Amino acid sequence: MDELGVGLIGTGFMGRAHALAFRSVGAVFELPVRLRLTALADADGQRAAHCARAWGFAQAYSDWRQLIDDPQVGLVAITTPNHLHFPMAMAALAAGKAVYCEKPLAVTSEQARQMHQAAQAAGVVTRVGYNYQHNPLIVLARELIGNGELGQLVSFQGEFSEDFMADPDSPWTWRCDPQQAGGALADLGSHLLAMARFLMGPVVAVCADTHTVHQERPVRAGAPERRAIAVDDQAHALLRFANGARGSVGSSWIKHGYKNHLAFEISGTLGTLAFDQERLNELRLYRAGQPGFQRLLAGPALPGYAAFSPAPGHQLGYNELKTLEVQELLMAICGQGRDGTDFQEAWEVERLAAAIRLAAREQRWVTL
Amino acid sequence: MDELGVGLIGTGFMGRAHALAFRSVGAVFELPVRLRLTALADADGQRAAHCARAWGFAQAYSDWRQLIDDPQVGLVAITTPNHLHFPMAMAALAAGKAVYCEKPLAVTSEQARQMHQAAQAAGVVTRVGYNYQHNPLIVLARELIGNGELGQLVSFQGEFSEDFMADPDSPWTWRCDPQQAGGALADLGSHLLAMARFLMGPVVAVCADTHTVHQERPVRAGAPERRAIAVDDQAHALLRFANGARGSVGSSWIKHGYKNHLAFEISGTLGTLAFDQERLNELRLYRAGQPGFQRLLAGPALPGYAAFSPAPGHQLGYNELKTLEVQELLMAICGQGRDGTDFQEAWEVERLAAAIRLAAREQRWVTL
Amino acid sequence: MDELGVGLIGTGFMGRAHALAFRSVGAVFELPVRLRLTALADADGQRAAHCARAWGFAQAYSDWRQLIDDPQVGLVAITTPNHLHFPMAMAALAAGKAVYCEKPLAVTSEQARQMHQAAQAAGVVTRVGYNYQHNPLIVLARELIGNGELGQLVSFQGEFSEDFMADPDSPWTWRCDPQQAGGALADLGSHLLAMARFLMGPVVAVCADTHTVHQERPVRAGAPERRAIAVDDQAHALLRFANGARGSVGSSWIKHGYKNHLAFEISGTLGTLAFDQERLNELRLYRAGQPGFQRLLAGPALPGYAAFSPAPGHQLGYNELKTLEVQELLMAICGQGRDGTDFQEAWEVERLAAAIRLAAREQRWVTL
Amino acid sequence: MDELGVGLIGTGFMGRAHALAFRSVGAVFELPVRLRLTALADADGQRAAHCARAWGFAQAYSDWRQLIDDPQVGLVAITTPNHLHFPMAMAALAAGKAVYCEKPLAVTSEQARQMHQAAQAAGVVTRVGYNYQHNPLIVLARELIGNGELGQLVSFQGEFSEDFMADPDSPWTWRCDPQQAGGALADLGSHLLAMARFLMGPVVAVCADTHTVHQERPVRAGAPERRAIAVDDQAHALLRFANGARGSVGSSWIKHGYKNHLAFEISGTLGTLAFDQERLNELRLYRAGQPGFQRLLAGPALPGYAAFSPAPGHQLGYNELKTLEVQELLMAICGQGRDGTDFQEAWEVERLAAAIRLAAREQRWVTL
Repeated sequence: MDELGVGLIGTGFMGRAHALAFRSVGAVFELPVRLRLTALADADGQRAAHCARAWGFAQAYSDWRQLIDDPQVGLVAITTPNHLHFPMAMAALAAGKAVYCEKPLAVTSEQARQMHQAAQAAGVVTRVGYNYQHNPLIVLARELIGNGELGQLVSFQGEFSEDFMADPDSPWTWRCDPQQAGGALADLGSHLLAMARFLMGPVVAVCADTHTVHQERPVRAGAPERRAIAVDDQAHALLRFANGARGSVGSSWIKHGYKNHLAFEISGTLGTLAFDQERLNELRLYRAGQPGFQRLLAGPALPGYAAFSPAPGHQLGYNELKTLEVQELLMAICGQGRDGTDFQEAWEVERLAAAIRLAAREQRWVTL
Repeated sequence: MDELGVGLIGTGFMGRAHALAFRSVGAVFELPVRLRLTALADADGQRAAHCARAWGFAQAYSDWRQLIDDPQVGLVAITTPNHLHFPMAMAALAAGKAVYCEKPLAVTSEQARQMHQAAQAAGVVTRVGYNYQHNPLIVLARELIGNGELGQLVSFQGEFSEDFMADPDSPWTWRCDPQQAGGALADLGSHLLAMARFLMGPVVAVCADTHTVHQERPVRAGAPERRAIAVDDQAHALLRFANGARGSVGSSWIKHGYKNHLAFEISGTLGTLAFDQERLNELRLYRAGQPGFQRLLAGPALPGYAAFSPAPGHQLGYNELKTLEVQELLMAICGQGRDGTDFQEAWEVERLAAAIRLAAREQRWVTL
Repeated sequence: MDELGVGLIGTGFMGRAHALAFRSVGAVFELPVRLRLTALADADGQRAAHCARAWGFAQAYSDWRQLIDDPQVGLVAITTPNHLHFPMAMAALAAGKAVYCEKPLAVTSEQARQMHQAAQAAGVVTRVGYNYQHNPLIVLARELIGNGELGQLVSFQGEFSEDFMADPDSPWTWRCDPQQAGGALADLGSHLLAMARFLMGPVVAVCADTHTVHQERPVRAGAPERRAIAVDDQAHALLRFANGARGSVGSSWIKHGYKNHLAFEISGTLGTLAFDQERLNELRLYRAGQPGFQRLLAGPALPGYAAFSPAPGHQLGYNELKTLEVQELLMAICGQGRDGTDFQEAWEVERLAAAIRLAAREQRWVTL
Repeated sequence: MDELGVGLIGTGFMGRAHALAFRSVGAVFELPVRLRLTALADADGQRAAHCARAWGFAQAYSDWRQLIDDPQVGLVAITTPNHLHFPMAMAALAAGKAVYCEKPLAVTSEQARQMHQAAQAAGVVTRVGYNYQHNPLIVLARELIGNGELGQLVSFQGEFSEDFMADPDSPWTWRCDPQQAGGALADLGSHLLAMARFLMGPVVAVCADTHTVHQERPVRAGAPERRAIAVDDQAHALLRFANGARGSVGSSWIKHGYKNHLAFEISGTLGTLAFDQERLNELRLYRAGQPGFQRLLAGPALPGYAAFSPAPGHQLGYNELKTLEVQELLMAICGQGRDGTDFQEAWEVERLAAAIRLAAREQRWVTL
C-alpha cells in the first residue's frame, strides 16, 4: 500500500487527540505508508468544516455514513460517544475498511462480540484505543514479564481512580447512562482491565462489589432538578488469573485528589514492578536481592521513545501515547504490527467487565 | 495508684521493643504513675537473667507463671509466640492483673472471644499491640475523619505487604503453622484489619481469596527436607463497612521490594488521605477544591509528638510507636485513657480475620 | 497577516522538535494566522528532501541562504549547531524575517549583543528556544510570584544536571568546543539562567567555580586517540538578584543518575515553590501556615494546558513545550504575544553566563 | 572500666534527647561498660530535681560545677546554650572527665581551638553531637565512598533548611546573637559542614554570601518592641575540597516548608548518592550503568540498625540517632570506637564556618 486515507469521526477530546496523532505520526516515525487526512465527520457540519480546516483534513462531512462511503477513506477512526461505536464500526467493517475505535468497544458485551465477529469476517485490521498500553515503559514491563524477569507471576493490584465526578453536583451526562456503558467501571475500569490482560493474560474468575454513592445528580450543570443515577461511582473486584496469580482492582471517578491514577503493581517470584499513569514516564522496579526499588525514567533505550527524543528523561505526554498507538495501527495495516488490542481482545475486555458486573449484582464469584 | 510494677514475658524482637518503651516512657511523658521494671520472664533462664540485667528489670524468671504470681507485678506484658498468648493472658486475668498482649490476640477467634470475656469479668485494663495506631499522624487521621473533614466515608483501600517470605527457601517457622495463627493474613493482615476498624469502624461483609504460592518450604534454614505449607502467602478481600463505605485489602509476605508496607487510602465525599508505614512520619491529604495532595510531616502540633521533640520533621521511629502505646496503656490503667485496642476490640479483629478466611475457603460473601 | 510561511533550518533533534511543533500547533490552538510549512534546509540535500517529505514541508534546500531568500518564508527557525546561529540569524534579520533561534543564542556574548541590536534595528519578532519556560506550571509559577503569593523573594537554588557526558569515554563533540559555546554551563546552565531570570528577574553579581573533570576524551566514539578538553564538566555559582534575593546554581553534564534535572526552588517570605523538569507536570508549593507542601498536577485550569487535554493529570510531554513555545511566537508575530524570550533577553542570559565564566576564571565576584 | 557515671548538664530539647539515649543505649546494645545515670544539673534547681526523678538520674544539681566535681561522674554531657559550652567543657577537661558536648562546639573558632587543645592535653575521649552522622545510612554512605563505589568524588551539593524563623515575628532568641554563635549558618549549617567533612574530607577554599532578611524581630514573643538582628537568616557558599571535588552549600532557617531538610547529593565518576534528613530512613543511590536511582530503606544489614529492629523498613527516629551516637561514644571511652567527631574535628568544622563568614564579609575566596 502506498497511501492510506484516514477518515475520522468525532471532534471532541478524543477526536482532537486522534487528529494530533495522525498529524504527528509521519514526522515522528518512518512509516511504511503515506497518510492522507482524507475526511472528518461531525454531526455538526459547521464544526466539522472548522475542525477539518484547522486539523488539515481535506473534506468535512456532517453524516458519518458519507465518510465511510468515501472511496478515498481506507481507515475509519471512531471517537464518538460509546453507543455510536457499534453502528459506525459495523458499517465501516461492512465497507471493508480498517477500523480504529475508541474504548469501550461497545455498550454491551453482546455488541462487542458481534463487532469482533464482523471484523473477523471482514478480514481487516481493527484496533481499540487502549492507548496506555503503548507507553514505552508499559511495553518494557510486558517484555520483562515475558522474559521471566519477574519469575512466576503472583499478584496484580490495580486501580484507576479520578475525581471528576466527586462533586455530587457534577451533572448527569451520557457517562451516567447504563445504556451507554456508563459508570466508573466501564469508563475508567475498562482501561485497567485491558491493562491487566495485556500484562497478566486472561482472568478466569471474579468477585466484585459496585457502589453508587451519589444516587442522583443535576440533570445538567447548575440545574435544580436532579435525575436518578443507576451506574457505579466506584467498583472493587477480586481477580483470579489463568496463570495462577491473584489480585484486586478498583475503579472510581469520585476519589478526591486523583486525576489520572491508573496505577498497578505486579509481583512475581523474582520481583515487583509498579506504575502510575500520573507519572507516566516512570516505572518502579524491584528485583529479588536488590536493596531497593529502582525508578526508571523513560528514555531512548525503550521501544518507541527515541522517535520522539534522543535524550532520556525528556518525557512523553498523553497525546504522544496516541501517536504510538497510531503508529502500531499503521504498521499492522501494512502487515508489520505486533499484537495490538483488536476487536477480539476488546471484546474479551468487555466480557470481563460484564462478568464483574454480574458478580457484583449477584454477590458471588463468577467464572469466565 | 502510685507505682506500677511491670512484668514482661518474652525477650525477642517484641520483648526488647516493650522493654525499650517501658524504659523510655517516663522520660518522654509526664506519667500519672511511677513505673517499676519488676520482672522479666523467658523460658531460657540464662537469657532471662542476662536481659533483665541489660534492660533494667529487677527480677528474672524462667517460668512465666512465677512472674504472674509475683505480687509486685501489676501489669503483665506478653510478647511470646502467638499460641502462648491465650494461656498467659488467661492466667494474668485470673490473677487480676492488667494485660498488654502482642497481636494477634489469639490463634483462633474462639480463644480471642474467651480472652475478651475473661477480661470483662476481671474488670482490668487490657491492650493489644496494634502499635501502628499510636502514630500521631494516624491519631490525626482519626480526628480528621471523626470531625467530618473527609465528609461521608466512601472507600478504604489497604495493603500490608512485606517480602520476608518471598524467597521459596525461607524456611518453615511457627508463622507457617495454622495452629499458631500463621500466614500473611494473620501475621500482617491483622494489623491492617485493626487499622481499618480503627479508622473506618465495623465491617459487615467480606469476600476473599487466599493463596499459598510456595506450597512447601525447608524444614529449617538450609535444610534439604521440605515441609508442606498450609497457610496463605497472600490474601485479598473486599470489604463492606457498616458506614456504607466499600473497599479492598491485601496482605502478602512474599511481595518483593516491600519491607513494612502497611499502606492505605481513605476517601470520602470531601477528601482523601493516604498513608504508608514505610514513611511513617508522613500523611498525604487532599481536600476537595485544593489543587493537589499535601504532604504533612509529623510535628509537635500532633498529639504525642511533642513529647519526643519540639521540632517538626525530626521523625519518630518504630520503637517510639511502642512508647506511645505504652503511654496510652498507662493512662488507661490510671483511668485517663482514650479508647485503646483492648481485648474486645482485638477479638473483633480476629472475628473479621476469621470471616475473611471463611469467605476465602467457601468462595462466597460472608456477613458479620 | 493571513498566512505565515515557515522556513526551518536543521533536521537534528531540535529540527524534528520544531517540525512537530509547527505541525501540531494549528490543531491544538486557534491561531490568528494560517501556517504554511514552506521550506526545510539541511546541508545534506538528500536528508533535506527526505525530511521535507516526511515532515510536510513544501520545499527542500541544501543551502540555508536560499531558504532565507525564499520570499514565501516569513519566519526562519534555526536549529543548527551553536556557531551557525549567528550568521543565519543575522542573514534572516537582514532579510526582515522573524527569527526563532535555538539556544544558546550565540557562542559569545558579543555575538549575542550584535544579534540583539540587529533584531532591534530590523523591528521583527525574535524568539529563542528556552522552551522550559512555556510549561503551564512554570507560567503559573511566574504568575504566583508576580501576584506576590510568595511574598518578597528571598532565595533561588537551581541546578541543571544530566549525565550524558559522565562516561570519560564519551567522545569529544562540538559541545566540547569553547568556540562553539561548549561546556555544561553553556549547554545546560543557560536554560537554568534563563529560568532564573524569567522567574526572579535580573542578576546583579555572581561568584563562580567551573571544573573540567575529564580533561581529555576520545576524538570520536571508540577511537583510541584522545583530545584535550577545555570546557567545564560542571559549574557552580552564587547569585545576587536585583530584587535582593540570593541563591546558587549548579550545572553538570557528568552527574550520574540525572537525565533532565532542571530543578529549582524559590523561596519568599510567604512560601516556597519547587520544580524538577524530570517531573515536568508537577509543581510543589508551600504557603506559610499550611501543614505541608502541595503537589500540583498540571491541568486545564493552567494557561495553555486545556488546548492539549480537557482532563487534568494527563500530562504534557517535552515536545509539547515546543508547541506552546511556537504558539506564543505566532501570537507575538500577530501582535498578541506576552513577553517572550527574545534576542534581547537571550543576550542578557549570555551576558550572565559570561560573567559566571569570568568570575570562575578570576576567582572573584563579578558585578553585572 | 566496669561502670561509667554519666553527668548531664541541661534539661531542654537536647537534655531530654541525651537522657533518652543514655536510658536506652544499654537495652539496645551490648555495651562494654555499665552505665550509671549519676547526676543531672540545671540552673533551675527545681527543674533539675524534677527531671532527675523523671529521667532516672540519682542526683540533681543546680550548679554545674558540682556535677563536674562529683567523683562518681566520669562522663560529662553538655546540652546548654552555645556560649556555655566553653566554660563547662574546659572545666570538665580540667577535671579529667570525658566530654560529650552538643554542637556547635563553641561560639568562636578560637574557643574551639582552645577546647581541642585542652582535650588533647587531658587525653580524654571527647565527642560533639553531630548525631546525623550516626544514621546507619550515612555510615553506609561513608563506606560506599571509602570503598570507591562512587569512583573519584566530583561534587557535593548540600543544604540545611528549616523554617522556624521564617515568620518575621518569630522573636529574638539567643540563636540571634552573634556572641552565641547565632544565625542559620552556625545553627544549621554547622551540621551540614560537619557532614560534608565526614563524607568528603577537608575543604580547602570557600566563597560565600550571607544574608539577613529580617533585620529586626520582636524582643520576645508578642512584644511590640523590636530588636536589630545581625546574624544571617540564610547563607550560600561554594566549596573546593582537598580531593578535588567542588560543590555548594546553603543554610536557611527561613525557607518555608522545610522542617529538617539536611539534604545533600554526592556525585563521583561511578555514581551518585542523595539523602534528605526529612526521610532519614532512605538513601537514594545511582550506579553508573543502572537504569535509575535505587531507594534504599534502612534495615538490619546496615551497621547499627539491627540493634533496634531485626526487620527492615521499620524505621529509626531522630532520638535513636542520639542512641547510636552515645553507643559510639561509650565504645570510644572503652577503647573500641571508630573515628567519631571529637573536639579536634569539631574545631575544624568551626574553622570552616569561620572561613565562610570571612569569605562572605569580604566577598572573596578564602583558603583554609
